[in-house]
Amino acid sequence: MDDRPIGVFDSGVGGLTVVKELHAQLPQEDIVYFGDTARVPYGSKSVPVIRRFSLEITRFLESQRVKLVVIACNTASALALDFLRRQTALPIIGVIEPGVRAAFRQQDARTIGVIGTQATIRSEAYQSRLQRLRQGCRVFAKPCPLLVPIVEENLIHAPIAALALEMYLQEFLSLDLDALILACTHYPLLKDAIGKYLGKNVRLIDSAEETAREVAEVLQSRRLEGTPNRIGLEEFYVSDSPEAFMKIGEPFLGRPMKQVFLEHVWKRDFGLSPDGAPF
Amino acid sequence: MDDRPIGVFDSGVGGLTVVKELHAQLPQEDIVYFGDTARVPYGSKSVPVIRRFSLEITRFLESQRVKLVVIACNTASALALDFLRRQTALPIIGVIEPGVRAAFRQQDARTIGVIGTQATIRSEAYQSRLQRLRQGCRVFAKPCPLLVPIVEENLIHAPIAALALEMYLQEFLSLDLDALILACTHYPLLKDAIGKYLGKNVRLIDSAEETAREVAEVLQSRRLEGTPNRIGLEEFYVSDSPEAFMKIGEPFLGRPMKQVFLEHVWKRDFGLSPDGAPF
Repeated sequence: MDDRPIGVFDSGVGGLTVVKELHAQLPQEDIVYFGDTARVPYGSKSVPVIRRFSLEITRFLESQRVKLVVIACNTASALALDFLRRQTALPIIGVIEPGVRAAFRQQDARTIGVIGTQATIRSEAYQSRLQRLRQGCRVFAKPCPLLVPIVEENLIHAPIAALALEMYLQEFLSLDLDALILACTHYPLLKDAIGKYLGKNVRLIDSAEETAREVAEVLQSRRLEGTPNRIGLEEFYVSDSPEAFMKIGEPFLGRPMKQVFLEHVWKRDFGLSPDGAPF
Repeated sequence: MDDRPIGVFDSGVGGLTVVKELHAQLPQEDIVYFGDTARVPYGSKSVPVIRRFSLEITRFLESQRVKLVVIACNTASALALDFLRRQTALPIIGVIEPGVRAAFRQQDARTIGVIGTQATIRSEAYQSRLQRLRQGCRVFAKPCPLLVPIVEENLIHAPIAALALEMYLQEFLSLDLDALILACTHYPLLKDAIGKYLGKNVRLIDSAEETAREVAEVLQSRRLEGTPNRIGLEEFYVSDSPEAFMKIGEPFLGRPMKQVFLEHVWKRDFGLSPDGAPF
């Protein structure tokens, strides 16, 4: 048994959808969450910047004695996962592999769509993994940069959300998709609207659930599970206003948060080189 | 004569609209621009975070030996101008006072609209200054958070831009506005569409032009003007990818940029306190 917390991070509130699933599947585990709300969003930023921010956060989570790190952000998973694995001895789980596996749970899935941020789609992280896992499958990937601000501004039910979905998803209608991967932790909040637009023949893959399942497997195989029947505690750290985070985050977590603290990870001295090398 | 450069900063590319005007009105002046593209946007962030970021940038501009600092960002002008004036001996000019003055250049303007980011509108910086300058004037202020990503994603001419303007501006139609202040340096790129929607009786105030005029006055009154007839040079520093900045920034500046450099201001030791106090 290992009652150290699980560390989870995201550029902002989106990763709370992963916390929600972790709590549902692993209620005995403590969780330490970090949301980089002072520097959100990551999806429009460059590889070196996303790697640097992700490493600072990982060092902070290490200082909180976590037993495992979940990158609950598609952009950081796409661009920083392999990099972080070289920088720490902790097990690190991203959201991409679980999403890809879930897409292929349907035996004959051959045409897969992927929607995400500019950085996630540009990295080709999903496209290359999907094609490696199933040769000959067709992958259509599209960046949808306006969806994050629409979700964050709570415009999910406004006409502008419908128009944005039409603008981004129209070209998928004629492709006969088997599945669409929602490759951004904000998108599950638009799942109903996306499902309605694409019709029920397109399976929507929300990687939060699948990621929590992978965390459970890794904890078990490495004998890192928490004591059964204990009640896990949660702590949340953010780099901007805790009050704003509590308010915006509630729909993502599905319940109110307690224990939200301000933490400026970039002010800690983790011995990172000042010029950003070797990112 | 003083041939030191003018320092200009913004959270990203928007402040280039001010650089464009400065260059038009003061072609003899050198300019050093800083765009905080690794941490953009500021408009959804809190007062202490915006002040800290603004101070780091001002210290960087001081290190470049600028003679004056222009805050070419409405959010930072609204939340950090007075704070920065206490932290540096350099003259500092924001974009708010010039915008307010421009609104009242029309003698009988009594009903003024203001659109900007969440942080700018919430600060009431415009509302309080407008009412101080002309008692009894009516001010209607509205945050329009989706307009920045729409401009940055180059969707200015897409149907979604028209729908966003309708969503935000509809309530202004019945108010018989004399003027609308475009209180965000991104909005001038939507000026035509906004003008069409509100009609030609509403004067649109774009503070870039007015701000450049104020800079010219301050340089003259303090005898800080550059040598006449010299050709000013421009240098641009950004905290994320220079290539992306050059591409996204070109429509704001109205011409291509040379001399764009990467600069991580937060890694310099300016002696700022690690916990963020006294912001």
